Amino acid sequence: MNFASDNVSAAAPEILDALARENHGPAMPYGADEATARVRAQVSELFEREATVHLVSTGTAANALALATLAPGWSTIYGHEQSHIEQDECGAPEFYTAGAKLTLLPGAHAKIDPEALETRLAVPVRGVHQVQRGALSVTNATEAGAVYAPNEVARLAAAAKAQGLPVHMDGTRFANAVARLGCAPAELSWKAGVDVLCLGATKCGAFAAEAVIFFDDARDWEFQLRRKRGGHLFSKMRFLAAQMEAWLADGLWLRLAAHANAMADRLAAGLADLPGARLRHPVDANLVFPELPVRAHRALQAEGARYYPWPGDQSFDGPDDAAAGCRLVCSWATTEAEVDRFLAVARGALSS
Amino acid sequence: MNFASDNVSAAAPEILDALARENHGPAMPYGADEATARVRAQVSELFEREATVHLVSTGTAANALALATLAPGWSTIYGHEQSHIEQDECGAPEFYTAGAKLTLLPGAHAKIDPEALETRLAVPVRGVHQVQRGALSVTNATEAGAVYAPNEVARLAAAAKAQGLPVHMDGTRFANAVARLGCAPAELSWKAGVDVLCLGATKCGAFAAEAVIFFDDARDWEFQLRRKRGGHLFSKMRFLAAQMEAWLADGLWLRLAAHANAMADRLAAGLADLPGARLRHPVDANLVFPELPVRAHRALQAEGARYYPWPGDQSFDGPDDAAAGCRLVCSWATTEAEVDRFLAVARGALSS
Amino acid sequence: MNFASDNVSAAAPEILDALARENHGPAMPYGADEATARVRAQVSELFEREATVHLVSTGTAANALALATLAPGWSTIYGHEQSHIEQDECGAPEFYTAGAKLTLLPGAHAKIDPEALETRLAVPVRGVHQVQRGALSVTNATEAGAVYAPNEVARLAAAAKAQGLPVHMDGTRFANAVARLGCAPAELSWKAGVDVLCLGATKCGAFAAEAVIFFDDARDWEFQLRRKRGGHLFSKMRFLAAQMEAWLADGLWLRLAAHANAMADRLAAGLADLPGARLRHPVDANLVFPELPVRAHRALQAEGARYYPWPGDQSFDGPDDAAAGCRLVCSWATTEAEVDRFLAVARGALSS
Amino acid sequence: MNFASDNVSAAAPEILDALARENHGPAMPYGADEATARVRAQVSELFEREATVHLVSTGTAANALALATLAPGWSTIYGHEQSHIEQDECGAPEFYTAGAKLTLLPGAHAKIDPEALETRLAVPVRGVHQVQRGALSVTNATEAGAVYAPNEVARLAAAAKAQGLPVHMDGTRFANAVARLGCAPAELSWKAGVDVLCLGATKCGAFAAEAVIFFDDARDWEFQLRRKRGGHLFSKMRFLAAQMEAWLADGLWLRLAAHANAMADRLAAGLADLPGARLRHPVDANLVFPELPVRAHRALQAEGARYYPWPGDQSFDGPDDAAAGCRLVCSWATTEAEVDRFLAVARGALSS
Repeated sequence: MNFASDNVSAAAPEILDALARENHGPAMPYGADEATARVRAQVSELFEREATVHLVSTGTAANALALATLAPGWSTIYGHEQSHIEQDECGAPEFYTAGAKLTLLPGAHAKIDPEALETRLAVPVRGVHQVQRGALSVTNATEAGAVYAPNEVARLAAAAKAQGLPVHMDGTRFANAVARLGCAPAELSWKAGVDVLCLGATKCGAFAAEAVIFFDDARDWEFQLRRKRGGHLFSKMRFLAAQMEAWLADGLWLRLAAHANAMADRLAAGLADLPGARLRHPVDANLVFPELPVRAHRALQAEGARYYPWPGDQSFDGPDDAAAGCRLVCSWATTEAEVDRFLAVARGALSS
Repeated sequence: MNFASDNVSAAAPEILDALARENHGPAMPYGADEATARVRAQVSELFEREATVHLVSTGTAANALALATLAPGWSTIYGHEQSHIEQDECGAPEFYTAGAKLTLLPGAHAKIDPEALETRLAVPVRGVHQVQRGALSVTNATEAGAVYAPNEVARLAAAAKAQGLPVHMDGTRFANAVARLGCAPAELSWKAGVDVLCLGATKCGAFAAEAVIFFDDARDWEFQLRRKRGGHLFSKMRFLAAQMEAWLADGLWLRLAAHANAMADRLAAGLADLPGARLRHPVDANLVFPELPVRAHRALQAEGARYYPWPGDQSFDGPDDAAAGCRLVCSWATTEAEVDRFLAVARGALSS
Repeated sequence: MNFASDNVSAAAPEILDALARENHGPAMPYGADEATARVRAQVSELFEREATVHLVSTGTAANALALATLAPGWSTIYGHEQSHIEQDECGAPEFYTAGAKLTLLPGAHAKIDPEALETRLAVPVRGVHQVQRGALSVTNATEAGAVYAPNEVARLAAAAKAQGLPVHMDGTRFANAVARLGCAPAELSWKAGVDVLCLGATKCGAFAAEAVIFFDDARDWEFQLRRKRGGHLFSKMRFLAAQMEAWLADGLWLRLAAHANAMADRLAAGLADLPGARLRHPVDANLVFPELPVRAHRALQAEGARYYPWPGDQSFDGPDDAAAGCRLVCSWATTEAEVDRFLAVARGALSS
Repeated sequence: MNFASDNVSAAAPEILDALARENHGPAMPYGADEATARVRAQVSELFEREATVHLVSTGTAANALALATLAPGWSTIYGHEQSHIEQDECGAPEFYTAGAKLTLLPGAHAKIDPEALETRLAVPVRGVHQVQRGALSVTNATEAGAVYAPNEVARLAAAAKAQGLPVHMDGTRFANAVARLGCAPAELSWKAGVDVLCLGATKCGAFAAEAVIFFDDARDWEFQLRRKRGGHLFSKMRFLAAQMEAWLADGLWLRLAAHANAMADRLAAGLADLPGARLRHPVDANLVFPELPVRAHRALQAEGARYYPWPGDQSFDGPDDAAAGCRLVCSWATTEAEVDRFLAVARGALSS
């Protein structure tokens, strides 16, 4: 019963098999290998467009390197106040951009309120005195487990592009979003105005593999220099490529994501029947944010369930009947049995 | 016949097995897993001293993060003019330190000439007008395949410490050095004055795993923040740990390195018998730097041998008898058959 | 009738005279001159405490260098959302700190709401995932012309210090604050918990001179290196020192500031009598923020009055009776005649 | 007898007068004043070409900001190993560029050896592994007081431009160079291939004023943002402009420089007659680098002469007859009497 994060999961067996298959004989380093070339072709086909693809091993690296390529130090990146780039990267975007600001926007379920963005972008920049407009960053699925539909992304992107700003998508859970929407990856990315997509496999079944996909290659060389300079260019690149190739092959990425989403649905459905339970966010992806009476949390923890209070200043202390929020994350590896056991323990605590 | 680099090799089977073994069930992320804890204990035991150990996935990240923790932006790092941090990291140390200088020192076989270091350190720093003395960086084994003995490291470190400078060791081929010297790892590191060792497994049999070992934990937290901020904190850390654990277990790291060294010896011995061949550097580790007549290179390339001219401005064009230098790198995966075939092709070209 | 900013004013005659007096013969550079030594003594006496004093030529440099010395790149600086460091320095704090964040706090009249600060500081930092708490920055007088009393500064500083944070004061209009409060400079700075005061003379009568005053010298050398590295170490330092010395001598700084404050009071008093005029902020210092009917603005502009709409998205277009905000800044050089003429023009427009 | 540096001199009376003249009434800040506009026109006329001109207050700021605008962090700047940007700016270029390297070139009298530059530029850059070629920086007059003729600058610039590199000139003593050569400023700058000239008035008669002159305005806006972000945008810009305007008006800049050069000639001529004296560098500008017997130094110091040993590790201790080098800098303010007294004291010591 580990719902702490999707990153507590192992890698899917297909990913391990691919690594094993790739693990023989010599291969040229730094991306000059055949597996990396295959991934490039695969991504272009999947996204129905020529794209430059570069692999890195963490989502933070993918985001920060991509943003630094888009937004100079004297600019600001517009993003949600709950976004990973603001909340969970220890300032990596600021580090890689040499000090760009993040302009934080509100919005329910960690989705940027388009009016808030439009209003903010309409504020004139006072010459050299203020940082300039830099880039827009959109996370799909969001930190609150919500999913933007293509037209929602398109509205935000249009507002950015009206000011000449490039659009970055933090797609650490892009797979979950696409699996939920059933749309083409192209629809949710470049067709909606996304210039760079950081497509995350790590949380969704890989060991550690993220693809930074530029739909326009104007900044390709700069990105490559930044990647190397950041220490993110793998010498044995074929092992990142092997993961990504297997993940994207034959729809595995969507099957894994759909499973994680389904487990979240199952959790949500079960929670709906519990007295005193309430969901704080819609369940569009693989995250569930219930509020539960403290005694349910206490019983769950006693049974070894792992998960975090949410928001961060919540606590599972307090009177039995007090409501306390938490975050439950399902992954490709979450089982129905785990979900059902979680629900049973909570139900038991609440009905006693 | 791929002698282009040790990073063209696959991972050793033991490393893959360890990854597979670790690949089940949930594990807490970001280094809070058991495998990472085991690696910490393992390193402390191997180095006969409590040490803080942090894993990253590339040697450039290890070096740059370690150096940034030691040397502020307004300082200079003393290192060899042929060192990886100067020649092969696209300025990663400068990026991570926010602009520290590298003061480049000469020395045969890419080993820092101790007198050159002592002379340079004796030059007074003119107040705020010049960057301050920051840190010493020593690479063992060197880019030219030479190995510093413990007393050689100690002399350099003593010069640094006389000025209060911390000492960094780029140990991307530390395994090869220890395997050659037959000394205890402690002797070649902290007992010789090294404060931070970047111990590389990637080139020596892993997929991608490097341990940054601080023998003094005063800067541990700062390093951790820098690692996260640099995008180098793996969420599924157990998979870096699994590699490192298997590599260090039961002396595997030294067996793999000793094999690579032995293959280099075999190459060197064979080359010694060839007319017109000459070694430019001693073969202390797994690298061989022969000069060969151009027609030998031509024959080797025709047979599909992969390796680079050395230094970089050499070329395999030119008259048949002109001497041209190259670099041949052996790895844990290099076979006697490959070595022998290389020698046979060269011998054939030269005796015809 | 130029109320655009206090930086449109010339330098006070005493400052020019001092420069002329200092302008003879050779003097050792980079602060090794006698005038700089005298300023150090003067500041320590004025603030009733040994302090290290370094001169720079712009307020942005003073703030950014001071903050970089206090707060590492992986931290956040707590400040008001309307503060100069956020709104008017094109990201200089982020640049000098190598990417620290600014955590923006609300509060009426650009004064930090102490409860908002306390609440924000109470939010736990999640390990390495978030930037760490770095420093508190307080501006006195504020961008809205309000003045913190010593006990108000002390409350904010106490909240910061409870978390171990150093406190920076942007004192570009510290003179105006002290002149208004009639308190000792020490009371409003180190006795209230301020660790570094950026004391601005530029806006208050100098050509270009700012003193960065550290009440604790632990970071003195680092600051000096940062200043040089930032290109802010004057060679002919005596000319910065001459300005600062004359400004601080015999209470000139407070006389100039008191005059500017009095002119603002005169403006405010006059505006109070005008139909349709309303002040948006209290007049604690030398800034006045009235709302006026558009036709008054139109008449003023026609008469050549210079000043800015406020906030920035206001405009002097629109229907005659629509209210539009503006900022009026008085300086040491503002005359009663200018004030009275401004009022007369506005009165004329409104009574017609 | 202060020959320590040209920055020990006061400002020329004409500069002070101009400041006084400009010091009345309000003027719009940040360069929107009339004096700044006049300087722009003046520079364009003097250099016979439209140019963008930005004023800053230190030479280090001028150089570092200009270089950062030319060379990205992942590049290297080619310059002389004795240049100010390497030796005297505490890493300001590295700071402003976010970590570019300086590739240090040799050459007599601190002039870059053109063959050394050509050879270095011919070395191929190995893909992303090495920092890329960034910019060339040439100092005229050099740190050793030598002057490049236009054709010498042109040869270096041609080598740079063959690789697509922009050319920066550190012109802290450009006035001395032009005064010596008697050429048009255009000949020694853009006609010889210089893209950005940092024209220094500070050492040559101003309080603190440097003009950064871009002969091509493609990077003008970026430079302005970098200047503000670096804290180098003066609010009361008219006072920088007043200095620069007066300095450039009516050939004052060349008269002041010619005087400084003439004083250096006089020193050199006098030293030529002294037994045991020897010049280490030609006297092209206002610097003289004699070697003198220690007893001469001892006598000079006893008489209060101020100057530095040169190179930095020299010392005025040692046996009476040992030769010790020093640097003597003349300025617009140096008098014949000072020179003659210096020579007389030295002559006395050597003939006794």
